[in-house]
Amino acid sequence: MATPQVTTRILRRLLASGVDTRAERLLARMPPADIAPLFSGLTRDEVATVVDLLFRQRRAARVLRELPSEMLPEIFEAITDERLARVLDRLEIDDLLELVEWIPEERRQTVIDLLPEQSRSELEKADLYPESSAGRVMMTNFVSLDAKMTAEEAIEALRARSDDDESILYLYVVDEMHALRGVVPIRRLVSAPPARMIRDMMIPDPVSVEADTDQEEVAKIVARYDLLAVPVTDVDGRMLGVITVDDVIDVITEEATEDMYHLAGLSEQDRVFTPAHLSIRKRLPWMLVNLGTCFLAAWVVGLFERTLEQVVALAIFMPVVAGMGGNGGTQALTVITRGIALGETEFSSAARAALKELAVGIVIGITTGIVSAGIAYLTVGSPAIGIALFLAMVVTMAVAGLLGAIVPLFLKAIHLDPALGAGVIVTTFTDVFAFFSFLGIATLLLDRMT
Amino acid sequence: MATPQVTTRILRRLLASGVDTRAERLLARMPPADIAPLFSGLTRDEVATVVDLLFRQRRAARVLRELPSEMLPEIFEAITDERLARVLDRLEIDDLLELVEWIPEERRQTVIDLLPEQSRSELEKADLYPESSAGRVMMTNFVSLDAKMTAEEAIEALRARSDDDESILYLYVVDEMHALRGVVPIRRLVSAPPARMIRDMMIPDPVSVEADTDQEEVAKIVARYDLLAVPVTDVDGRMLGVITVDDVIDVITEEATEDMYHLAGLSEQDRVFTPAHLSIRKRLPWMLVNLGTCFLAAWVVGLFERTLEQVVALAIFMPVVAGMGGNGGTQALTVITRGIALGETEFSSAARAALKELAVGIVIGITTGIVSAGIAYLTVGSPAIGIALFLAMVVTMAVAGLLGAIVPLFLKAIHLDPALGAGVIVTTFTDVFAFFSFLGIATLLLDRMT
Repeated sequence: MATPQVTTRILRRLLASGVDTRAERLLARMPPADIAPLFSGLTRDEVATVVDLLFRQRRAARVLRELPSEMLPEIFEAITDERLARVLDRLEIDDLLELVEWIPEERRQTVIDLLPEQSRSELEKADLYPESSAGRVMMTNFVSLDAKMTAEEAIEALRARSDDDESILYLYVVDEMHALRGVVPIRRLVSAPPARMIRDMMIPDPVSVEADTDQEEVAKIVARYDLLAVPVTDVDGRMLGVITVDDVIDVITEEATEDMYHLAGLSEQDRVFTPAHLSIRKRLPWMLVNLGTCFLAAWVVGLFERTLEQVVALAIFMPVVAGMGGNGGTQALTVITRGIALGETEFSSAARAALKELAVGIVIGITTGIVSAGIAYLTVGSPAIGIALFLAMVVTMAVAGLLGAIVPLFLKAIHLDPALGAGVIVTTFTDVFAFFSFLGIATLLLDRMT
Repeated sequence: MATPQVTTRILRRLLASGVDTRAERLLARMPPADIAPLFSGLTRDEVATVVDLLFRQRRAARVLRELPSEMLPEIFEAITDERLARVLDRLEIDDLLELVEWIPEERRQTVIDLLPEQSRSELEKADLYPESSAGRVMMTNFVSLDAKMTAEEAIEALRARSDDDESILYLYVVDEMHALRGVVPIRRLVSAPPARMIRDMMIPDPVSVEADTDQEEVAKIVARYDLLAVPVTDVDGRMLGVITVDDVIDVITEEATEDMYHLAGLSEQDRVFTPAHLSIRKRLPWMLVNLGTCFLAAWVVGLFERTLEQVVALAIFMPVVAGMGGNGGTQALTVITRGIALGETEFSSAARAALKELAVGIVIGITTGIVSAGIAYLTVGSPAIGIALFLAMVVTMAVAGLLGAIVPLFLKAIHLDPALGAGVIVTTFTDVFAFFSFLGIATLLLDRMT
């Protein structure tokens, strides 16, 4: 397979030559997921032409779906309101809802008004569901059956549908109130004797989610029970739609990105291809908060200015305690945050997990503390600095392990994102503890020795 | 739903009462994924009893599959070799292969020898595929068709299979050499007229992977093209097996965990529920490496001992430069590492990505540098310290951004894991640069001023 860069060069040459039919043929041969990366190498005019060519092939919508959402505003700029509305109208409601959110606010209503009445009302309905809820990611074109049908009648019903949608994996059995009663895997339908009643072959009371269930929860359920699709109902159990596993994969991927990003204090909209000025605007507020916490640590060091004046060598070992504490805290934080996301905390209680991280921190603190004290004694020849380094290391690593575990567990307990802000809290406190314990203990020991 | 803790209490009470039938009925009502978490609260004898009860229900294998692999060795201890072999024999080959790897080495061969001949030879074959390759995660019980069959004959072939395997979503069309020729989604088969030829309804030349393709690559392909299953072939295109989307979800989740863990210098086997002594053994070597890098930073500080003796206030601001640099480096590293994992680097070139992080680092360095210099000047009243802090901040943040981008991109270019070791390299170098630039510039300025 040619790299996107090479294909982009070929595509640009074809576009420049003015013979669009050759560019069109190139695009026709490529799957949507392979076309999407080409956009980032094109000028605005070229994007407009490519969207036109794809529109003729009725594939523009499918290619837009494959773009990272963060790139959409730039691409939308190259498309007129009318064309954009016609492209968006070809999408499933869940994709439509997501793409609409990325249209710049000043154009959004204009584009929505250009959509056909039916899409518009579907969009309005979907928009009522809470953010990142199941209702916003479900498809509404599922196949529903009556329990009193035979297998043959069900197959007929399926045949009557005009679309050849390969994503139909389960058929949903509903009663006269549209309440979900059971599910028939399509594979069962194929093997069933024609006269078999749906009632007798369905799986009764299947796993389902409600429309306002959080998407992360839905993803967990699908992964946990190895489902390929999960039905979505309203509070009264009436069938509303289906979430398929490909959307669940997207949710799982996004949630992992979110956790990694939050641990580093990043916003999800700050990606590899985000223009520098936008990344700066996203990162700067957090960096200023971080600057504040750094000055807090500096202030702690300042408390011991007189000790440092007497023994400058202490300044040399400050980075050791702080560096080790930061690392220990990050490790505990990563294990616990990821454990919460994966449901591993089900296999251990919060208290047990926190105590374990404390124990690990103490043992690692003792080991690395002994090594550090040895090095300090051999290099500067002061037993007091060695002892202070050892004790500070044990205290700091213990605090780092405990905080790394407790902070995300506490954030989760009060229903906040366990990763968000946890990084800055943990590293700030370990830094403060590192400097306070090391310089504090050194001050006490040096006073006693002199 | 009751929490695992509550259910464990109930289960233990039922087991203690000696009336196993009631415990058995409780377990029978629960899905395997909900039974698994109970194990961590049980004693060894209780685990043995529960495995026996599950074995009677023919569900022990399915429950073991749901346990985090890291918990398996402990559970296996409670099961005799004979029982374990009989339980494992009920698993699909991909699950069997994984579980066998977690049997303690001294028992493994004994248990394998107790497996029936067929499972043993399948296991030996699967074991030949490279680690984390497609061959190790594929199922081998797929349905293959002849292109010359009719839809009706294909349905008959499917009906003839004794298993009611819901995971069959596609049927695979092979030629007389067993080479993969096409794929028929089961939904198409259902709607097709009975006399329609398989040849005329199959999707020709479907996406497939080879048995030694890396699982991460397989997961990317499945996610990219929204597949539900992907066929696995040998180098000559002969059909060997199928990887289904539920296994792909596991791979995606594991890869994300691996990246997060590697960034923090953790081993994948170090989980929330891992006993403390094992976690310590896993983390200690890395922490000793990290200690070495901390002493490298300390050595850099030591180079400026004489400057520090003259101006102790410099020690106070050291944590500010190092803390900010560490954070900036981690942010760039997280964006690039995650971008590599998600294929976002397709949407930007490596050089563009690195230059962007450099630019972001410089701008944030200038902004936070001005603030820091102001605070330093206002608190200690030295313009030299303020200027040194400002310049060091710009240099350090620039280096942090650039290294955060270049290190993972370089590791990827030489086909190493972009996350592994990147964290320690980036934070070490930013620390070293932070101290060297801050104390070095301060030395120059102070010399000039006095």
